[in-house]
Amino acid sequence: MTLLSRQHGPHPYFGVRDDQLVVAGKTIEAIAASIGRTPFYVYDRAAIAARIAELRDVLPTRVDLHYAIKANPMPEVVQFIAPLVDGLDVASGRELTLALTTDHSRADISFAGPGKSTAELDQAAAAGIVVNAESTRELHYLASVAERSGTKPRVAIRVNPDFELKTSGMKMSGGPKQFGIDAEQVPQALEEMRSLPLEFFGFHIFSGSQNLRHESIAESQRNALDLAVKLAAHAPGPVRMLNIGGGFGIPYFPGDRRLDLAPIKANLAAVAADAAQRLPDAQLMIELGRYIVGEAGLYVCRILDRKVSRGQVFLVVDGGLHHHLAASGNFGQVIRKNYPVVIANRVNAEPREVANVVGPLCTPLDLLADRMDLARAEPGDLVAVMQSGAYGLTASPLGFLSHPAPSEVLL
Amino acid sequence: MTLLSRQHGPHPYFGVRDDQLVVAGKTIEAIAASIGRTPFYVYDRAAIAARIAELRDVLPTRVDLHYAIKANPMPEVVQFIAPLVDGLDVASGRELTLALTTDHSRADISFAGPGKSTAELDQAAAAGIVVNAESTRELHYLASVAERSGTKPRVAIRVNPDFELKTSGMKMSGGPKQFGIDAEQVPQALEEMRSLPLEFFGFHIFSGSQNLRHESIAESQRNALDLAVKLAAHAPGPVRMLNIGGGFGIPYFPGDRRLDLAPIKANLAAVAADAAQRLPDAQLMIELGRYIVGEAGLYVCRILDRKVSRGQVFLVVDGGLHHHLAASGNFGQVIRKNYPVVIANRVNAEPREVANVVGPLCTPLDLLADRMDLARAEPGDLVAVMQSGAYGLTASPLGFLSHPAPSEVLL
Repeated sequence: MTLLSRQHGPHPYFGVRDDQLVVAGKTIEAIAASIGRTPFYVYDRAAIAARIAELRDVLPTRVDLHYAIKANPMPEVVQFIAPLVDGLDVASGRELTLALTTDHSRADISFAGPGKSTAELDQAAAAGIVVNAESTRELHYLASVAERSGTKPRVAIRVNPDFELKTSGMKMSGGPKQFGIDAEQVPQALEEMRSLPLEFFGFHIFSGSQNLRHESIAESQRNALDLAVKLAAHAPGPVRMLNIGGGFGIPYFPGDRRLDLAPIKANLAAVAADAAQRLPDAQLMIELGRYIVGEAGLYVCRILDRKVSRGQVFLVVDGGLHHHLAASGNFGQVIRKNYPVVIANRVNAEPREVANVVGPLCTPLDLLADRMDLARAEPGDLVAVMQSGAYGLTASPLGFLSHPAPSEVLL
Repeated sequence: MTLLSRQHGPHPYFGVRDDQLVVAGKTIEAIAASIGRTPFYVYDRAAIAARIAELRDVLPTRVDLHYAIKANPMPEVVQFIAPLVDGLDVASGRELTLALTTDHSRADISFAGPGKSTAELDQAAAAGIVVNAESTRELHYLASVAERSGTKPRVAIRVNPDFELKTSGMKMSGGPKQFGIDAEQVPQALEEMRSLPLEFFGFHIFSGSQNLRHESIAESQRNALDLAVKLAAHAPGPVRMLNIGGGFGIPYFPGDRRLDLAPIKANLAAVAADAAQRLPDAQLMIELGRYIVGEAGLYVCRILDRKVSRGQVFLVVDGGLHHHLAASGNFGQVIRKNYPVVIANRVNAEPREVANVVGPLCTPLDLLADRMDLARAEPGDLVAVMQSGAYGLTASPLGFLSHPAPSEVLL
């Protein structure tokens, strides 16, 4: 691990050589030269594989690992990850199409999302994947598809739990929510399923994402099993699949502490042993997106201009919020904080200075680093935003101000 | 004007007929049927023209009106607006290409942006448009282009003023900023220009956007003239163009009061008369984007599902933050507020209810209306987000979760 930023912690995968950031054995200048232009996103196969290996060590045999494509749907990334995981989770028809290009069995592909269109439900039923039904409307629509087509769609119930994931970056359970069927309404939905031509597969119990506290994740995993056992009593068949969610966070901001996997490993072993007794037919799974790819990617842009305005340094770069909305602080952050940002071709160089990194857009929102401690930089130098492998390019307003799109490579 | 939402004010352009929202004389159901799918953005030519006519009444002859393409770069919209305004402002090379497809003289097209690439500066110089130079680096690069090509690029200086636009939605002046050259450094930059093969055109003094207080706008217009007069003393030639900014806001949120144009008209008349004395060669201009198109557009989606979760109603629609980031509250808002949202095919129907409108994405951020008073709605009904003509589609993360893009029509 190399300390890359003085405000942020060390990075687990990327090193520094000749004071340049190194990704997949190549210096950042060499990568930029081989791409031929900036800005770009670069993702590192070895980092992704290393992260999945760490996860494999944490997960007992009875707990499968699924990749949530939405975190990074770049086709090369999906193709690289697919053989390393046990299944794929999709959030739209187009993601489903992508999942179908892999070798995964249809039973290992699941589709969640609170607003599936009828076209998407038709597609999912035809493909034979598992639909995580989020409402009784979806159950009835899938039943009508079954009657029309003679198929028997595989359906899991997405449950809006009656507990919440504590201290989660993004809570998705525990109160009124658009996700899934409220736990207390699930017995009724399962009762309705008995008379519908659907194959009951199990439960999807997802309580939140981007959590850095192992205690909260462990608690939500235990709660998910308990809830599934309770609901299984009402099910029209055995629970074959139990998705106990994901939620593993990665450190983004100054002060964020890396998630401790050891207690999660111990907890999952206990949960899996417990599940073997209480839900003997169920394959457990966790579903991770950001945790698999988030730390394996960088966004890199080049400094176009260096300005000093009323005592502050502004490094104006050729990329910005139109390519990386989250790093600008405009995606779910209430108070803007800096992502880890470095001068990538002179990471630890002296002298240092406090500088702002701003993009080319005519808006003060286009801010990639707000008064950070950086190596003193000049036009031509490269700026890297770390922790950019998930929810980067696809979660950004690419068309804003009609600038060119960044390149995207997997190395 | 028709009262569309009980929490928001009346709308100046769109009416209601048979309890349906009416755009360009057509009911929203008829428009949806003719587009053949949802979601979509629809922009109304007549509303745009009416808004420009209102502005013409406010602007003295000596003050030109420019359209800032970034607010809505849909080619049909740009083509419609172009003959109704005196010039176009662009913020990228691609916007410049679009501007060049109109009949405007090259001297009436200007290019601002703090991070122009060398390719964009080459393009601007070749086209002969006015570059609003934001740094001495841009001045020197343009001079090098001039020496290479034998042209004499038209250059205005974008000034980071030493005053600020008070109570602006987005401040862009008055402190350390990436925009323009600090007012106190401009005399030095003008001095440098004397020896460079550049045609001095004037000043661009832009102090902020989305302001609803006429006093602040009027004050910044007077300040811009005073500053330009002061700086003109150092200029290598007469000031031929003075862009005194824009900043006219539109009401988005409950409690927002519509901008009062009457005092702005009076102020502009005084500023123009003053300018005729103090900068006799200067054509003044204001540059507006959002104010021209913002209220002329709607985003429309269809309800897919209606869910009640723990006492709250969720209307799940087929569009969301991936199409309309600003309406979800994730674009520059610190505290999320509701855009005006209506059930567009039963605007004032009874019964009413308090409901959330959420999109299809697997994130709690995908929220278009947070506990709003709406007509009770069912799957199949249409939801319209008003005030969506500016910074809608292009300012949204279209690729997020790989859902289909919305349609876009000008009626």
